Amino acid sequence: MSEVTEIIHDHPGLAWDYTQKGWTACVVSNQEATLGIGDQGASSAVIEGKAALIMSLGGVNCVPLSTDTYGMNDAEKTEFLAQFAARGSVGFGVVMFEDIPGRLSQPVVSRTRQILTELDKVRDGAAEVPVFHDDRDGTKGIVLTAAINSCRATGRALKDANVAIIGAGAAADGIHEILVAAGVPREHIIVCDSDGPLYAGREGIKGTYKEGMAIPTKARTVKQACDGRDVIISVAKVGALLPQDLEGAAKDFIYFGLENPSPAVLVKDARRMGAAVVVTGSGADKTPQANNMYVFPGTVRGCLEVRARNIEPKDYVNAAFDLAMLVNDEDIKRGVILPPLGPESTATIAAGIATSIMERDAARLDVEPIDIQERVRKDLERIQETAEREARRYKPS
Amino acid sequence: MSEVTEIIHDHPGLAWDYTQKGWTACVVSNQEATLGIGDQGASSAVIEGKAALIMSLGGVNCVPLSTDTYGMNDAEKTEFLAQFAARGSVGFGVVMFEDIPGRLSQPVVSRTRQILTELDKVRDGAAEVPVFHDDRDGTKGIVLTAAINSCRATGRALKDANVAIIGAGAAADGIHEILVAAGVPREHIIVCDSDGPLYAGREGIKGTYKEGMAIPTKARTVKQACDGRDVIISVAKVGALLPQDLEGAAKDFIYFGLENPSPAVLVKDARRMGAAVVVTGSGADKTPQANNMYVFPGTVRGCLEVRARNIEPKDYVNAAFDLAMLVNDEDIKRGVILPPLGPESTATIAAGIATSIMERDAARLDVEPIDIQERVRKDLERIQETAEREARRYKPS
Repeated sequence: MSEVTEIIHDHPGLAWDYTQKGWTACVVSNQEATLGIGDQGASSAVIEGKAALIMSLGGVNCVPLSTDTYGMNDAEKTEFLAQFAARGSVGFGVVMFEDIPGRLSQPVVSRTRQILTELDKVRDGAAEVPVFHDDRDGTKGIVLTAAINSCRATGRALKDANVAIIGAGAAADGIHEILVAAGVPREHIIVCDSDGPLYAGREGIKGTYKEGMAIPTKARTVKQACDGRDVIISVAKVGALLPQDLEGAAKDFIYFGLENPSPAVLVKDARRMGAAVVVTGSGADKTPQANNMYVFPGTVRGCLEVRARNIEPKDYVNAAFDLAMLVNDEDIKRGVILPPLGPESTATIAAGIATSIMERDAARLDVEPIDIQERVRKDLERIQETAEREARRYKPS
Repeated sequence: MSEVTEIIHDHPGLAWDYTQKGWTACVVSNQEATLGIGDQGASSAVIEGKAALIMSLGGVNCVPLSTDTYGMNDAEKTEFLAQFAARGSVGFGVVMFEDIPGRLSQPVVSRTRQILTELDKVRDGAAEVPVFHDDRDGTKGIVLTAAINSCRATGRALKDANVAIIGAGAAADGIHEILVAAGVPREHIIVCDSDGPLYAGREGIKGTYKEGMAIPTKARTVKQACDGRDVIISVAKVGALLPQDLEGAAKDFIYFGLENPSPAVLVKDARRMGAAVVVTGSGADKTPQANNMYVFPGTVRGCLEVRARNIEPKDYVNAAFDLAMLVNDEDIKRGVILPPLGPESTATIAAGIATSIMERDAARLDVEPIDIQERVRKDLERIQETAEREARRYKPS
């Protein structure tokens, strides 16, 4: 043991080979924004589940790290979560934040990255690891895939689409970011928070992340924001979007109702208002389910496959397009929007993320993308088969 | 999942039943004082090994949490490690610090306990967990056991013994604490750091933990400190104690050379100088090995068995006496000082720790001590058998 640790001390990069770092991620949370439930206090229940999903669906090790930020203000929470994650990532190759509130999402992630960049300098380039916020980044990936295929299904080009996003939390912020990264002009996207559209110069948003999503527009209500829109995405609270708000949407518009457990506008109401494609976060009424489970296990796996230094919006865009292309034109015509969730989809995300990271020179390993895709798929199929076999074995007779 | 988390939110104590907290410990380190090697930078190698030992020898789950405190001064390190461990212990039922430097040992542990006590108030009594520093507390436990049996072997009563401790780091501090807790009068114990004996009023120690170990004495050299001593314990660096320093020790004195990989005074030299019993940290020359592996897995297990709120010196004293009594008088006469390391010894430590914690009303569960002893022993025997069977199975043919 002392020999291993001395070798790593002299060559920090070997920690990726000789410790758990190379195949282990951590999930860090303060349980403040547990999806659809709110602040869940001090319990690791939810993120234990997330870690289990990363292990079973991604085929890598994952440790749940639940923290208690009781009594801290937002600035203190940001600094604590960032220091906790960055300085505590010695044994981890990826940091995934979970259920931290939207307003802290970008500050926490960027501060964590900043600390890691500093540590990286004194740790011989071994310390920097990808940091992402599942609620924001996992969601945005699958939403882009669904948007790409919804456009294919309705004969649109994504980059020409007009988009309205109802909701301005972490998920909405991530969706806005990835649509822009995927080529949708910023001025084509209007975002509404609980006070209505984020228009340029609106009071109270200056200096917040919302300012970055504000555009010049005459729309002052949610309905006006939806008028003429090709794609309407709601990721807000019940009541934030009403069926009648969709009255003036574009012909054959696309509606994504991402709320859980049911979409802001019910599936039948959206269809009644003219939606040609309806995607939900919950899979309600057998709609395609834009679940971040498509994205986060493969993202973690892809990062570890190439020992990534960081992750950028571009990487998710690359992976989301690859995932979308798993649905062929025939299936698109039959109304399929998302591929089946399983080893193939996760391997595609992993390879898509890893390839983009290698192209950006942000990888510590250089691997053939096709090898990643194949290895991950086979690995996950094996895990799935084992799980199914064990499940049969322990079935109560 | 959301139902579980909501139930725990309303009844925080149920986290002990419904999450990993009830059977999972964490090991927190900044690798600054890796035994016998010094600062090992940013690598989780050593504490991954510690966590593996807790899992295999203690039969509970354990997560290694390696942190990077680069660039921090001592006050910042103390606050960071304490906040990291206390606020990060949501999913853990025990916090064990490992390889943090001796000077930070007490400040870090007491600050961690302080934060946990505060969180406990707002978390309905569910947040407080035992916090200990293995290098200090694990070592002190087995040293007390060895001291008890060495006294039995040489016809002494521990409480009448005169003790010299050479070294004043975390381990020495812990040994001093437990000897006092076990009934050795404070004025019977003289401690030396690298500048010699800690005498009352010595310059430079005021306000440090060393002040608490200083006594009125005329001794000004290590040799003078050893003169007439019944028990001489070295836990320092090579050269801190020389064979000739033992010249004036009591007849049939007891020598513990706890340094790794070899004791400050070699076994043959100690015997030549008249030591009747020699115990080492390394097991050199087939001497009884005062290894903290006897203590920390059972300590973690004992705490989790009763969902302890905290751990105190008294608890280690109780467990150390129980462990010592596993060696019967016949074996003592034959020169045996420590019992075999295995399920029986670990179960004894677990039951001893748990019993004392229950007696102090610091347990969340009330269990029969004999049940703990039995359950833990059987559990560990099963683990050992499984490991041995698997090892045979995978033996290269």
